[in-house]
Amino acid sequence: MQYTAAQSQSVAIIGASGYVGVELTRLVQQHPALNLLGCYVSEHSSDAGSLLSDLHPQYAHLVKLPLQGLSSHEKDFIKGSADTVFLCTDHGVSVELAPEFLAAGLKVIDLSGGFRLNRVEDYPAFYGFEHEQNQWLEQAIYGLAEWYPQEIAAAQLVAVPGCYPTAALMALLPVKQAGLLSDNKIIINAVSGVTGAGRKASLTNHGAELSLQAYGLFEHRHTPEIAQQLQQDVLFTPHLAQFPRGILATVYAELNDDVSDTDLDKAYQCYAGQPLVRCERQARPAIKNVVQQPFVDIGWHRQGNQLIALSAIDNLLKGAASQAIQCVNLQLGLALEEGLL
Amino acid sequence: MQYTAAQSQSVAIIGASGYVGVELTRLVQQHPALNLLGCYVSEHSSDAGSLLSDLHPQYAHLVKLPLQGLSSHEKDFIKGSADTVFLCTDHGVSVELAPEFLAAGLKVIDLSGGFRLNRVEDYPAFYGFEHEQNQWLEQAIYGLAEWYPQEIAAAQLVAVPGCYPTAALMALLPVKQAGLLSDNKIIINAVSGVTGAGRKASLTNHGAELSLQAYGLFEHRHTPEIAQQLQQDVLFTPHLAQFPRGILATVYAELNDDVSDTDLDKAYQCYAGQPLVRCERQARPAIKNVVQQPFVDIGWHRQGNQLIALSAIDNLLKGAASQAIQCVNLQLGLALEEGLL
Amino acid sequence: MQYTAAQSQSVAIIGASGYVGVELTRLVQQHPALNLLGCYVSEHSSDAGSLLSDLHPQYAHLVKLPLQGLSSHEKDFIKGSADTVFLCTDHGVSVELAPEFLAAGLKVIDLSGGFRLNRVEDYPAFYGFEHEQNQWLEQAIYGLAEWYPQEIAAAQLVAVPGCYPTAALMALLPVKQAGLLSDNKIIINAVSGVTGAGRKASLTNHGAELSLQAYGLFEHRHTPEIAQQLQQDVLFTPHLAQFPRGILATVYAELNDDVSDTDLDKAYQCYAGQPLVRCERQARPAIKNVVQQPFVDIGWHRQGNQLIALSAIDNLLKGAASQAIQCVNLQLGLALEEGLL
Amino acid sequence: MQYTAAQSQSVAIIGASGYVGVELTRLVQQHPALNLLGCYVSEHSSDAGSLLSDLHPQYAHLVKLPLQGLSSHEKDFIKGSADTVFLCTDHGVSVELAPEFLAAGLKVIDLSGGFRLNRVEDYPAFYGFEHEQNQWLEQAIYGLAEWYPQEIAAAQLVAVPGCYPTAALMALLPVKQAGLLSDNKIIINAVSGVTGAGRKASLTNHGAELSLQAYGLFEHRHTPEIAQQLQQDVLFTPHLAQFPRGILATVYAELNDDVSDTDLDKAYQCYAGQPLVRCERQARPAIKNVVQQPFVDIGWHRQGNQLIALSAIDNLLKGAASQAIQCVNLQLGLALEEGLL
Repeated sequence: MQYTAAQSQSVAIIGASGYVGVELTRLVQQHPALNLLGCYVSEHSSDAGSLLSDLHPQYAHLVKLPLQGLSSHEKDFIKGSADTVFLCTDHGVSVELAPEFLAAGLKVIDLSGGFRLNRVEDYPAFYGFEHEQNQWLEQAIYGLAEWYPQEIAAAQLVAVPGCYPTAALMALLPVKQAGLLSDNKIIINAVSGVTGAGRKASLTNHGAELSLQAYGLFEHRHTPEIAQQLQQDVLFTPHLAQFPRGILATVYAELNDDVSDTDLDKAYQCYAGQPLVRCERQARPAIKNVVQQPFVDIGWHRQGNQLIALSAIDNLLKGAASQAIQCVNLQLGLALEEGLL
Repeated sequence: MQYTAAQSQSVAIIGASGYVGVELTRLVQQHPALNLLGCYVSEHSSDAGSLLSDLHPQYAHLVKLPLQGLSSHEKDFIKGSADTVFLCTDHGVSVELAPEFLAAGLKVIDLSGGFRLNRVEDYPAFYGFEHEQNQWLEQAIYGLAEWYPQEIAAAQLVAVPGCYPTAALMALLPVKQAGLLSDNKIIINAVSGVTGAGRKASLTNHGAELSLQAYGLFEHRHTPEIAQQLQQDVLFTPHLAQFPRGILATVYAELNDDVSDTDLDKAYQCYAGQPLVRCERQARPAIKNVVQQPFVDIGWHRQGNQLIALSAIDNLLKGAASQAIQCVNLQLGLALEEGLL
Repeated sequence: MQYTAAQSQSVAIIGASGYVGVELTRLVQQHPALNLLGCYVSEHSSDAGSLLSDLHPQYAHLVKLPLQGLSSHEKDFIKGSADTVFLCTDHGVSVELAPEFLAAGLKVIDLSGGFRLNRVEDYPAFYGFEHEQNQWLEQAIYGLAEWYPQEIAAAQLVAVPGCYPTAALMALLPVKQAGLLSDNKIIINAVSGVTGAGRKASLTNHGAELSLQAYGLFEHRHTPEIAQQLQQDVLFTPHLAQFPRGILATVYAELNDDVSDTDLDKAYQCYAGQPLVRCERQARPAIKNVVQQPFVDIGWHRQGNQLIALSAIDNLLKGAASQAIQCVNLQLGLALEEGLL
Repeated sequence: MQYTAAQSQSVAIIGASGYVGVELTRLVQQHPALNLLGCYVSEHSSDAGSLLSDLHPQYAHLVKLPLQGLSSHEKDFIKGSADTVFLCTDHGVSVELAPEFLAAGLKVIDLSGGFRLNRVEDYPAFYGFEHEQNQWLEQAIYGLAEWYPQEIAAAQLVAVPGCYPTAALMALLPVKQAGLLSDNKIIINAVSGVTGAGRKASLTNHGAELSLQAYGLFEHRHTPEIAQQLQQDVLFTPHLAQFPRGILATVYAELNDDVSDTDLDKAYQCYAGQPLVRCERQARPAIKNVVQQPFVDIGWHRQGNQLIALSAIDNLLKGAASQAIQCVNLQLGLALEEGLL
């Protein structure tokens, strides 16, 4: 396929050395409309100068870029040459970097949590820092690709959703938007592979210490992110498991009285024709079916007023990198799945 | 330690070839007060005549018994020689066999679901057969060892709880008994290793097909078992995972108004001094900590009226075989952990 | 890219329901020069009529074909419409089916072991049947894509190598062809994921029974296949492990006297520029780096006369399906990696 | 059972916080003839003051000891009160500590590599330090329990074998001692779980980085240890795998001409009656069968002059802690398996 100039973009990836960064780099490289200018890590990182594939040998022969330190010189180069910057940086780093690139007129796709929450007041409690970019926070568009396509298409700053929120919201928004949910608290029980904990040495991630175990009870930062999208009270409990990739969310929600199966079918029909959503009544999504794939698999089950919605994603893809690509596809007017299937 | 005649028992194990059966055999063999007369499988099983350790080579040198077919001659021998029979048989088989041994005056410790439900009416729906032993069902005592010690000590027929119910009830009964739970539905999200699916060839159990996945939504037979013990509505959702052993239950329950942390502490104090319960406020039980161990690990967390209780067990031990031994220890007046630590 | 008629092909896949078959189907579907006519299973298989993605839900939305029973009517359709037939059938079935399609003028890419061995005499011992297609056996070309490109390009019948032989030969042929190996027996120690055992219910494949364990000592059918390619005595010992996909081969071979590191470097230089081979002195290939990828990763290490060559592949891809695509690419004059990266 | 004073011992464990240390602590605690005085870590370790079960929660309720910093005051206490000291310390630390306790008349069971090699000259190359305790090195007895029982019984200093050497030697020594092996190099291919890499945070041990992969080619420090016991050239290649515990060794050795199966049977008969060795012709040991067990499982297979000997152990038990207990049992004149089954 040929792309017009308006449809193609030069992009830079900052924070490329982690598990999400390398997946995104790979996706950008194989995307027909994206031209990758460079991959960056923080200026003094010991990874600067390495090949990205030295850190992630599964991508040798596929991703041949060196990681460059993000000096001010490199920043200037990016501002002068790139159309879009992807930030795979820590939350606080994103909040610092994004305004600089935005001010230079670039689009920013931020994969951190730096611009996901609506209210600056929530940042100290959930992210541990004061957020001083309230005006950008207000302009940031939440990049849940199937749900906010127009807004994303027009946004200068996109906050790509967290991995758990993506899994939970994709399962819940159809019934929420259709007005089928009662106001009662929604319970989200989710299990993630260890790449979700990031590529860092710690006893928590040690292969002999890992085991299915809950964490972050009542206080995980994805709780307010999910709640604000649903505008409803949620109880979110993540668990770490010993497998490398994937999230399974088991969501318990109460339906309003007199909701019929037909109502539910109709609500989930919103995904009909969506290329990256595989949704079926009674389906039982499994992590193995979504690993290394850009899909979200959804199944729904009901008994009386009780809904159980199940969803599975690859935390590094639909939960991060491939959803970021979906956002860029929206901005370029391309098919949502361009470069992903 | 020396045991008096009154404290020692001759026992037989029927249905010894499965994952639970072999664990029970091992425990019986190393128990100082139990004398194992024999291990049996159904009369025409192809396993009859094999050594139990041929099927389970991890127990070579430890368990040296042959599996014997349960002919009528063998039944007579058991009736004449054993004090107690353990049934690790299928639910329907237990319901047939138990009355025979009970009529002969033996005690029966049944590890199937054949005598767990209170109401015969529930058997067709949840177990797929008509239960025709109502009088024994009424006499059966539910073998949750820490909770019904006197009843178990006096029982002729003990129904050892299911694996999921054990995990869920051990976490919930303290607050239920203390009157701290509201009447609202309790949600139990649980994940089990693949030994829970039994030792049989099937694509479901295939190592390349296994992955974290929910099953039995709204209809698992452990739902009525948990509900009747709690006398409360429960929503139980099991998941199969790819690891061999262990269950983690994440339980969501609503507390009554004005329940304090002190009330909760006091409620869970019921486990103080219990040798096989490791319960702590804020603990986050992990499956690796209970595998091949007779413990249940429990942690509780609250925010406002919301309680999250976590529990982990080895599904083959506290979820089956070691709990059966606890029941026998109660019957013999021994310490609950005798032969288990 | 546009393909001329000479470069594009209509193909059928027989035996598509297994782990290899579905990977091949996926690769054919996304290949720009291949037109998939249909996916077939044996005429009376219970899978006939199912969607391929019902059996392999990870490919829902990607592979939308039904599995068709291979009736004589369907065979005629294939003979009349297809240029190439892929056989992912059992060894004996391939030996029966291939001559039929070959006689009709089609090309056959056989992924079974039915045409891999040079000598009919070896079939009874290693495959358990008399091979009655000696003339086709003589014409079959061994489809090790990087090593026999001209022969494969011209072949009517290609025998795609076994998974273990692919791993072993890719590591050894460079030094063998360069004349650096002594005549002493070569030892190949290899470990495979459980998809290598096929998609069938058996206790061997049960998730709770799997564990690292050797099998097929001295008698695995890949032994003569490796030996005939190397024209040298080999001792091959496979092991089954609990992970789903991937093979790691650790190969011990003796070098001739006076072989220098430079000689070795020069020998492995044969892979320079090969798009699907990642070969490096001192590299330590890992299974995670090749899973779901068409690469073979190779590392070599020496001390004195001792060579250790390591190689890793995805058993379903370079060990089967993607290598089959490489063979077709050779036949069509396309780049070796066409449709694979 | 009652033990005489001569048969019981007071012991201290130094370096108790790691994976081996905690297993040893557990075994000592449940051993009827051992009295555990204390568990120690290095004086300034951040673990000092913690409960051992805080680090290893699977042993809560079982191991209730605090970890104490090893101050000079504590050393004096040990010298004055203990009969035997177990060292689970780093190699260099053991070499420093052992002479102090030995000089005070205590017995030392060292689980590090500090006293395993015969020649001080090998320490710089394989352990990275100059060994300055040559006289103790000469007196140290290699603690391979089934093979050197008299020497161990009489030793003041026992060097408990490494995990890989235990697996390899247990499989090979029967044929070596029987004079059945040719002089040709022996190849040992072995795979270990990640506890073998120790309890420390590192990317190598990260659950998402682990995968079957060779390491330490030609230079692992267990090579000279195995070679000196066999007095023969060995090529040892370890691999790290993603499971927590266990080692499988696949050993390739050449037999002398005219060795018969009867000769082999006779050689392996040396293990008849050994309580902790499960050895069988044609057996295929699997890691799952030895995890959390003190056994070594051995199988042997031959074809012509080629022997393949397979062995599996738990690297933390027979490969470390339970073998240390076997050594103490020998010193106390107890049954080899005392406290272990």
